[in-house]
Amino acid sequence: MTNKLNEITVSTEHIFAGKVISLQVDTVELPDGSTGKREIVKHPGAVAVVAIRDGRLLLVDQFRQAMGRCELEIPAGKLEKGEDPMEAARRELQEETGYTCGKITHLHSFYTSPGFADEIIHLYLAEELTAGEMALDDDEFIEVYEATLEETQRYISEGRIADAKTILAAYYWQLHLATKHQA
Amino acid sequence: MTNKLNEITVSTEHIFAGKVISLQVDTVELPDGSTGKREIVKHPGAVAVVAIRDGRLLLVDQFRQAMGRCELEIPAGKLEKGEDPMEAARRELQEETGYTCGKITHLHSFYTSPGFADEIIHLYLAEELTAGEMALDDDEFIEVYEATLEETQRYISEGRIADAKTILAAYYWQLHLATKHQA
Repeated sequence: MTNKLNEITVSTEHIFAGKVISLQVDTVELPDGSTGKREIVKHPGAVAVVAIRDGRLLLVDQFRQAMGRCELEIPAGKLEKGEDPMEAARRELQEETGYTCGKITHLHSFYTSPGFADEIIHLYLAEELTAGEMALDDDEFIEVYEATLEETQRYISEGRIADAKTILAAYYWQLHLATKHQA
Repeated sequence: MTNKLNEITVSTEHIFAGKVISLQVDTVELPDGSTGKREIVKHPGAVAVVAIRDGRLLLVDQFRQAMGRCELEIPAGKLEKGEDPMEAARRELQEETGYTCGKITHLHSFYTSPGFADEIIHLYLAEELTAGEMALDDDEFIEVYEATLEETQRYISEGRIADAKTILAAYYWQLHLATKHQA
């Protein structure tokens, strides 16, 4: 049905291979037969975790160089090579917040920036949480917050929460509550 | 409160400057005094539009080279230099779907990938829609869909909708309906 919109890769120029991302410029044949350039960032993929304990969402505060400031986000991190996303979600939750979970459910997998990046985030709901020890990476400095829905919404309106996956998590939470109250 | 998490930029190496994105590697001083590298993609920012007409969400189908396939998304596009985001939202809606809107409201502005990119998307709700002519860019090939909430949710479960901003739009819509039904 959508074949007529397809683009065909003619060639790929590799620009940069870094620790986290790599960059390439693809030359593509467009549907009308002309050619175009597509600047593409390759990313290993990531996981993120919605974890709500006693009516509070687990958030981590960390400095984001791309934003030039700190931001509150749900626990998240890159997939390691060959790692199962669900195991990665358990691992990141435990490393960043100390919590382990008895139950974990896949909610969505989504591309963050399909116009220029292949990053996909696998989003999980973690339940039956048990407190424990954090285990941060060497270059990771974070603080854990536990926020009510009202606080979470205030953080969004203040811009302290300002990324797609965390706003999506807040919507999920609010919708889950709204639907439950209707039932 | 979060100052102790801050990182200080020591130097910036410019790797690539493209048509859409540029790439740099920043050396930063970490909170413990050691140094680290941050690979950062710079992006001009973008707008996206939630437009619902007669109970149907406007979607555009387009090929995404980063994903290697077509995907259905809400109308969206990059900010032009110096452009007001709200005007850009009106422009993209009209260019990609033909619709103009009598009323437009800012919903959220969010970073898509704060770990490696400064892309921010300004999300708007467009109302009082009037059909008109599309005006696509030379390298843009898209098809317009109008989907009920049920169809939208099916597209998400099938992966035909698979990006953060469009899933966020679907959540917004669902939540708006859920809240309205409660009132």
